[in-house]
Amino acid sequence: MIIVMQYHASDEEIGNVVAHIREAGLQEHVSRGSELVIIGAIGDEDKLDQARFEVLPGVERVTRVAKQYKIVSRVTHPAGSVIKIRGIPLGGEQIQIIGGPCSVETPEQMALAAQGVFDAGCSMMRGGAFKPRTSPYAFQGLGVQGLEYLKEAAGRYNLPIVTELMDVRMLDTFMEYDVDVIQIGARNMQNFDLLKEVGRVNKPIILKRGLSATISEWLMAAEYIAAGGNHNIIFCERGIRTFETAYRNVLDVTAIPVLKKETHLPVIVDPSHAGGKAWMVPALAQAAVAAGADGILVEMHPNPCEAWCDADQALSPDELKSLVTTLGAIARAVGRSL
Amino acid sequence: MIIVMQYHASDEEIGNVVAHIREAGLQEHVSRGSELVIIGAIGDEDKLDQARFEVLPGVERVTRVAKQYKIVSRVTHPAGSVIKIRGIPLGGEQIQIIGGPCSVETPEQMALAAQGVFDAGCSMMRGGAFKPRTSPYAFQGLGVQGLEYLKEAAGRYNLPIVTELMDVRMLDTFMEYDVDVIQIGARNMQNFDLLKEVGRVNKPIILKRGLSATISEWLMAAEYIAAGGNHNIIFCERGIRTFETAYRNVLDVTAIPVLKKETHLPVIVDPSHAGGKAWMVPALAQAAVAAGADGILVEMHPNPCEAWCDADQALSPDELKSLVTTLGAIARAVGRSL
Amino acid sequence: MIIVMQYHASDEEIGNVVAHIREAGLQEHVSRGSELVIIGAIGDEDKLDQARFEVLPGVERVTRVAKQYKIVSRVTHPAGSVIKIRGIPLGGEQIQIIGGPCSVETPEQMALAAQGVFDAGCSMMRGGAFKPRTSPYAFQGLGVQGLEYLKEAAGRYNLPIVTELMDVRMLDTFMEYDVDVIQIGARNMQNFDLLKEVGRVNKPIILKRGLSATISEWLMAAEYIAAGGNHNIIFCERGIRTFETAYRNVLDVTAIPVLKKETHLPVIVDPSHAGGKAWMVPALAQAAVAAGADGILVEMHPNPCEAWCDADQALSPDELKSLVTTLGAIARAVGRSL
Amino acid sequence: MIIVMQYHASDEEIGNVVAHIREAGLQEHVSRGSELVIIGAIGDEDKLDQARFEVLPGVERVTRVAKQYKIVSRVTHPAGSVIKIRGIPLGGEQIQIIGGPCSVETPEQMALAAQGVFDAGCSMMRGGAFKPRTSPYAFQGLGVQGLEYLKEAAGRYNLPIVTELMDVRMLDTFMEYDVDVIQIGARNMQNFDLLKEVGRVNKPIILKRGLSATISEWLMAAEYIAAGGNHNIIFCERGIRTFETAYRNVLDVTAIPVLKKETHLPVIVDPSHAGGKAWMVPALAQAAVAAGADGILVEMHPNPCEAWCDADQALSPDELKSLVTTLGAIARAVGRSL
Repeated sequence: MIIVMQYHASDEEIGNVVAHIREAGLQEHVSRGSELVIIGAIGDEDKLDQARFEVLPGVERVTRVAKQYKIVSRVTHPAGSVIKIRGIPLGGEQIQIIGGPCSVETPEQMALAAQGVFDAGCSMMRGGAFKPRTSPYAFQGLGVQGLEYLKEAAGRYNLPIVTELMDVRMLDTFMEYDVDVIQIGARNMQNFDLLKEVGRVNKPIILKRGLSATISEWLMAAEYIAAGGNHNIIFCERGIRTFETAYRNVLDVTAIPVLKKETHLPVIVDPSHAGGKAWMVPALAQAAVAAGADGILVEMHPNPCEAWCDADQALSPDELKSLVTTLGAIARAVGRSL
Repeated sequence: MIIVMQYHASDEEIGNVVAHIREAGLQEHVSRGSELVIIGAIGDEDKLDQARFEVLPGVERVTRVAKQYKIVSRVTHPAGSVIKIRGIPLGGEQIQIIGGPCSVETPEQMALAAQGVFDAGCSMMRGGAFKPRTSPYAFQGLGVQGLEYLKEAAGRYNLPIVTELMDVRMLDTFMEYDVDVIQIGARNMQNFDLLKEVGRVNKPIILKRGLSATISEWLMAAEYIAAGGNHNIIFCERGIRTFETAYRNVLDVTAIPVLKKETHLPVIVDPSHAGGKAWMVPALAQAAVAAGADGILVEMHPNPCEAWCDADQALSPDELKSLVTTLGAIARAVGRSL
Repeated sequence: MIIVMQYHASDEEIGNVVAHIREAGLQEHVSRGSELVIIGAIGDEDKLDQARFEVLPGVERVTRVAKQYKIVSRVTHPAGSVIKIRGIPLGGEQIQIIGGPCSVETPEQMALAAQGVFDAGCSMMRGGAFKPRTSPYAFQGLGVQGLEYLKEAAGRYNLPIVTELMDVRMLDTFMEYDVDVIQIGARNMQNFDLLKEVGRVNKPIILKRGLSATISEWLMAAEYIAAGGNHNIIFCERGIRTFETAYRNVLDVTAIPVLKKETHLPVIVDPSHAGGKAWMVPALAQAAVAAGADGILVEMHPNPCEAWCDADQALSPDELKSLVTTLGAIARAVGRSL
Repeated sequence: MIIVMQYHASDEEIGNVVAHIREAGLQEHVSRGSELVIIGAIGDEDKLDQARFEVLPGVERVTRVAKQYKIVSRVTHPAGSVIKIRGIPLGGEQIQIIGGPCSVETPEQMALAAQGVFDAGCSMMRGGAFKPRTSPYAFQGLGVQGLEYLKEAAGRYNLPIVTELMDVRMLDTFMEYDVDVIQIGARNMQNFDLLKEVGRVNKPIILKRGLSATISEWLMAAEYIAAGGNHNIIFCERGIRTFETAYRNVLDVTAIPVLKKETHLPVIVDPSHAGGKAWMVPALAQAAVAAGADGILVEMHPNPCEAWCDADQALSPDELKSLVTTLGAIARAVGRSL
């Protein structure tokens, strides 16, 4: 921790900061510049509370040096982690595409969707049974019945399933239905009780980035899961909130190389929720793979115009197929495969 | 709903949009301008799904006209609601100050805090027993024991208590302890399962604004609570996330008059979390009252330097007392009382 | 400057950083923690280029310690500056209100406007002769003729005039017309050539904050003016750009106490451009004065519905009069006068 | 234009809006829904001022329907424009790479830079002679001498030159030196006097996006240039300002497909200023080409560690060469060439 003292800090104030550092079992380094005094606290920084130094008299500002995330940090696992989902590797040389509808609607829709996902060459299937909706009057998902439809449809093609968990009380049901990958949505990225619960199971977790979550907060949210014992975490960039109103969110491709540097865990991208319009999806998915994403989570509906939810952002089966072909070419251009 | 057609939309495309409007039981109004065709859908707009019109061929964009929030809208209750908390009116002519520490620590700390809150002239007491923390390694609150300490300390001065609920599974405990006002934190503003649960109880709910929630999303989050039957909702502005790094959040005072126009429910402000530094709190609290806030939720600690959490943002008892005096003068300057 | 080395930085890399520090004539302090090595550079930090240290092998990140603004910093002038505008003090105990229309339209409009400004108790008059408009097809202002109308109308009541300069080539004309206060608009806050030019004249400058300028960038923009020799700079907060779409900008009241702490120069607020609607203006102006602003720059039009520009944000003469009365009461509540 | 009336708008208020529409020479369409009245104004919308309708009694809100940009709109030129720069086509099937240092330093540096740019396979060379710097105390560029060095170095390889214009008074000099492409920087995107001036010359203009400019404002800024008669405009996305602090800016790749849909003009990307670190540049440049960019503007320095400006974001000659190879492979994957 580095403490910068105010311009006219007194020797007494400096001594007081030093006393607090020693009290916590660390050592101080006092650097007296021509204008400013800077104090470094050497030792286990986690024993110090930044806010308590900031209120000490004469302190201008305090900066942490060590990173607060430990288990998810690449420092602990320089090689990069590959997460296996029913044998399918995520995070390695091969890129994975997860396709499927925004929400599970009917057995017929799911049957067609599963066929489209399989035919396009996707390796996993997504579908929402519990839907976080801005309005209480909007369709909230089929619930447990949706899990059944999804499992049944995906099972015919042996596709692992990915679906969102919103409520801690539903986790047991997800385990009973043997959901292959549990998704934590953007609005729940800092629902800490939910993070703690999924940290106690052994299922891979897709952790979507909060609408305005910093990279650091996102890593800390993953650390909540990891601290519980579940290290199978997949980061999913899905667009951030900015001032721009011409599209729903701004897909933050810079997050991809930055996360790959900071953490050993895989990073995938959801281009459907980012732009919010189907015609933007190919450009965004292509950008994601070109920037180094380990996979793509994309919405496809057998008949987009009839979708019960987010109809405007789903690709048709043919559009998905065409996109996967292009993504394969880009993957090869950047030294990977699909 | 208003549908703007693309520049070269065909008659067939226009006819298709009209057919969809009629199918939903509404009527169309087609306006043919020199360059553009605009179609209005007249009737109960809630029967239409905006996204499904956006994917129809030839459609440029679609705008909802009616507001999606109903129960919380001022239209339904033009006079403004006053919420009574053990007899204390919130939302009327009188401004209420809720003071107390960020987190409940010890019985001694709470006893001193309660005395300071009472002496300063606050009408309610806050204190966190369950704490949402960015890091899993930070102090997470005393839990149920914290509720006890808070209730005990506030009870001596007959101050109603305000405390945060993070987990649906804890709601019964909150009801058993007869928490007077349940706070939903910024990170849970769109935790829809939690909102639904607190919609089923009869306690006043303070709904903090999400870090990057729009006014519209915030009103819809309140509508989730209201739709469950609990109309005792208090909005709490606590700063939004922007590009500025010189302070933690930007207190959005414009939200105050805008909310007062859109909803009949009370609006309070938390100046402590907004700025993140104790020395900014008075200016922000003063601005809030001057802009029309119905109350202030402010952090005070008997000994800020020793606080276990957010030590840098708590006022001392004396600072709180002085602030309340100034707030009273500002309240009178804008035709209210304290 | 503080250099944090990477986790596994070698002794050679550390030696290289130290060599660069010494080469620039500064001294190093090397702190070896249990996990990290931190190097402080002691001496005149302005001799070091942060970016060149960031590319040295083994460096994790580099933080400047000293502030880059010097002349405008409160450190150089702890008491606070009062700027005199034809004898009217800005920045002291008394709050000043500058009123007038968005744009100068006709001599008749300006005559009525000046009367309204004077009657309401404002001490200066504003009016735009050169208008920055998003669209090239929108009214661009009357130009030099507008200066004449403004000067003539304000002169009748001996009100100093405030008007915006957009183009360096117009500065001589502004000097000829003896404009009392030159305004630099938000879009030109980092038009560095313009800043340099107004740094060479002796007129007070109102420097509006850029739409997404940080406090630090804003202070540096003022430093550009100050470095040229003109220290009569007035900061004007006018709302920042965020994700919120319910109002044009978010008035950042936190900027007021933060600027007052960082700089000795006066800080005023423009509540009209912030919210963008006349009905929001009183709440925002009141918040600004309560938070410590030294003045208010507010739009008034003798007949708002007929204004040629931003008709929806101008107060009527009566509304301005009523607002000034309330602002006076708030000023007294916070220990100032009007 | 669409005018939504307030919930309880009277017939008189509706009549007043209609009267204003007719007065401007347009026709009204009044749609009376079960709850709301909506009025459409049919005809030349440019004759109406949105703000003046927003202040009429009983009006809830007003929405423009027609787009305000005309010349730059794709509607006027559906095929897409190809801009020729000394015979090099920008905006067609072939992608162009513009490389070079942030700032022009010495003849030796420029000679090495030009060689590196040419060897890597770039088709144009960039270099800053006039530098917009946040601090008045930072290196401000070599000025006219910099133009000379740039022209001389690039000339040896017959590379067209790209350089930034900050001050209207320098335009004549740029014309004398026959600068091939004039760059308008992010901070000057809404320097309207500068836009007007470059609208009067026949040189291609690279218009960088402002730090927080919306797509719509950016298109309007281009319309300023186009309205003056210069239609050779190239949009350059260079990252936007958000809440994220882990990197300098967020490269907005969504802007690429959206601009390509809205305008017929070419769109290029600057990956160097976006991320702010050299190690992020390849991922961002790759994403840009994959998303459909027509070109890349990238910083390269013969010796990055010795660069006078932004040393941390320049690629080395070898890194540039390697990047161009990868970009070629991605271009082919998306059906283009390099």
